[in-house]
Amino acid sequence: MKAAIVTVGDEILIGQITDTNSGYIAKALDKVGIAVYEMLSVSDDRLHILQTLAFLQNRVDVVVITGGLGPTKDDITKNTLCEYFDDHLVRNEAVEAHVIELIERAMKRPASQVNKDQALVPSKCTVLHNAFGTAPGMWMKRADTVFISLPGVPYEMKGLIDNEVIPKLVAEFERPYIIHKTIMTYGQGESLVAERIEDWENNLPESIKLAYLPSPGKVRLRLSARGTDEPLLLKAIEDATLGLKALIADIIVGYDENETIEVVVGRLLTRQGKTLATAESCTGGKIAQMITSVPGSSAYFMGSAVTYATEAKVDILKIEQQLIDVFSVVSAKVAEAMALKAKKLFGADYAISTTGNAGPAKGDSPAEVGTVFIGLATPTGVYSYKYELGQPREKVINRAAEKGLELIYQEILKN
Amino acid sequence: MKAAIVTVGDEILIGQITDTNSGYIAKALDKVGIAVYEMLSVSDDRLHILQTLAFLQNRVDVVVITGGLGPTKDDITKNTLCEYFDDHLVRNEAVEAHVIELIERAMKRPASQVNKDQALVPSKCTVLHNAFGTAPGMWMKRADTVFISLPGVPYEMKGLIDNEVIPKLVAEFERPYIIHKTIMTYGQGESLVAERIEDWENNLPESIKLAYLPSPGKVRLRLSARGTDEPLLLKAIEDATLGLKALIADIIVGYDENETIEVVVGRLLTRQGKTLATAESCTGGKIAQMITSVPGSSAYFMGSAVTYATEAKVDILKIEQQLIDVFSVVSAKVAEAMALKAKKLFGADYAISTTGNAGPAKGDSPAEVGTVFIGLATPTGVYSYKYELGQPREKVINRAAEKGLELIYQEILKN
Repeated sequence: MKAAIVTVGDEILIGQITDTNSGYIAKALDKVGIAVYEMLSVSDDRLHILQTLAFLQNRVDVVVITGGLGPTKDDITKNTLCEYFDDHLVRNEAVEAHVIELIERAMKRPASQVNKDQALVPSKCTVLHNAFGTAPGMWMKRADTVFISLPGVPYEMKGLIDNEVIPKLVAEFERPYIIHKTIMTYGQGESLVAERIEDWENNLPESIKLAYLPSPGKVRLRLSARGTDEPLLLKAIEDATLGLKALIADIIVGYDENETIEVVVGRLLTRQGKTLATAESCTGGKIAQMITSVPGSSAYFMGSAVTYATEAKVDILKIEQQLIDVFSVVSAKVAEAMALKAKKLFGADYAISTTGNAGPAKGDSPAEVGTVFIGLATPTGVYSYKYELGQPREKVINRAAEKGLELIYQEILKN
Repeated sequence: MKAAIVTVGDEILIGQITDTNSGYIAKALDKVGIAVYEMLSVSDDRLHILQTLAFLQNRVDVVVITGGLGPTKDDITKNTLCEYFDDHLVRNEAVEAHVIELIERAMKRPASQVNKDQALVPSKCTVLHNAFGTAPGMWMKRADTVFISLPGVPYEMKGLIDNEVIPKLVAEFERPYIIHKTIMTYGQGESLVAERIEDWENNLPESIKLAYLPSPGKVRLRLSARGTDEPLLLKAIEDATLGLKALIADIIVGYDENETIEVVVGRLLTRQGKTLATAESCTGGKIAQMITSVPGSSAYFMGSAVTYATEAKVDILKIEQQLIDVFSVVSAKVAEAMALKAKKLFGADYAISTTGNAGPAKGDSPAEVGTVFIGLATPTGVYSYKYELGQPREKVINRAAEKGLELIYQEILKN
């Protein structure tokens, strides 16, 4: 079973926007055994879209189209679908009611005619409910190929893929079984992990493929098995996972590939009934933002003192000015003091602190660009670590935030 | 003059990697008047690549291909190009010398045979020098279409595009002028903006195309003109922009497409020599993180009190418990108090505060999921605004953070 993903929009073809939707959709399709044959980005042009649909008609079973469903004149996907399917637009009452309710609730104004016209859909289509926006998804079939049209706004597209498209594809098509299992590891590099599991890897059964997916600070190991006998595949994956666990239990943090370090830390804190706070300088609130992106984080996150200016470190965290004068604001001593003060100020069990220079220019200290100290305060002590995280600024901030969470994870595990 | 961009690689089709190369290439081509007709991502499969090249042969003047030029078995672009051009590989001495020198300098070891074989190129190709890597770029022509093959490593590809491909295209082809102008607006939705400028849009000259590029809280309007008379195009874009400014000056914040609200706010603060702080509850540090993502933000950003827990609001911001008891923690009164206290605590000129419920479950107050109060403290007063931002959590946090920055931008403008 094969799919194609089509993105409609001039903004992608002139390089103004990077298409991240296609990757999300590809991952979701792959997970349920549908291989993506091709991805295409085409212009907001009627003829070009028609040619693309005709080209894919005989090549794939499923075409997922994103973009071009907005309320403005340059959004032509819907009319072009009508043309391709020899169809016309009709008003869908359920969609119109949803649009009116959404606009009134979110915008505090009555829905305009332009808003209401989002409820016009091809008469032959099956509407897919867009819980997060006004443009509905559409499902249409011609010969043996299904055409699915989705809005390009990422969170609307994601909601539709997860809640409507994938369940409907799974229900309507027989697919081979593809079983993936991802093992998340933190703290060791790809080549070190590879060395530790070399024998195990060489003895994997033929039906199982292993992929290393390294990113800074972590390595995901993905096991994949494809075939028709589901119980057999599940058993093979399970056996392989047990073998792996015996070798690298110390660096495995979870098995969900979407599981980020902030989710892992949150689950551990919840389980232990402990709380966390942060004191952030060079990360500028990034750690707090990551932690609070997790639903339910209010159960274990107390807050953060983002003391960006040196004065704020003195005034709010009550770091002694003398400590800063002697050791400089970017130092192990200041990182440790920040962590301890944050722990106390917020009444938390654990605290993470950061102080460093994210660049591009030098700051209030002689520290090199890329130098970051991370401090940890725990129920049993205070620690600090120094990192050289290079450039550019965005990388330094992101790596320091990830590192802080990885380090506190290891500390919480000990207690 | 039209181009297509082809990315070769299975890792893109299973959603493991996002293709950012195509956007870079598209921008570079667009800038010199070459319109990108289509982008495609195809698998590491000989037949699929051959079909794609044949498909594009009659449709575009230039095909830029990235990927599949590495030294391992799954890199098949070079052999497939030979097949398409009925050609064979020959050793290029200049490339081989470059490979040997690069490997010895960077790796401190002699080049292996695998390295040296990077110097094998189709006999009919013109070699494009890859200053940053071992895989050369290749330029081949069949009928009126040029095929350019580049390595997929982003910095190698970028070097080749900037230093080899674009200069050679500019030298060999006559191209039209393409002029783009992007107008950034904040604070009103796409359909509302569309309504306000409807008459203007209907009266745009034929030579100008308008595109709406909406993202949460903002809409970019992009005007494009294409033709052979550059002064005429510039004048047409200028006239259209003036017409637009007369209609929506209140929501236009700038004309640089890469400019975010945090950059706009930062520039305004820098110009006025003023400072900013935040007190964040439901946004969890997101506003601070956005502000500090901008290089040089330490000149105007003092810090943030991320008072996620209600206790933290009382202990750190010194919000009166009574105020919370009477009005609830998610209220206009608490938002205003948070902004005032943050302004004072950090000694800043302006402060933004947020308190709300980002969901998915209810929190320490009876507020509905999606309800957010934003407070602003300025040199002249304190204000608050209530928003219903719906769902999901990620959207509520992002929208509230953007809103806070938009609102403070309007306030700073007044002073």
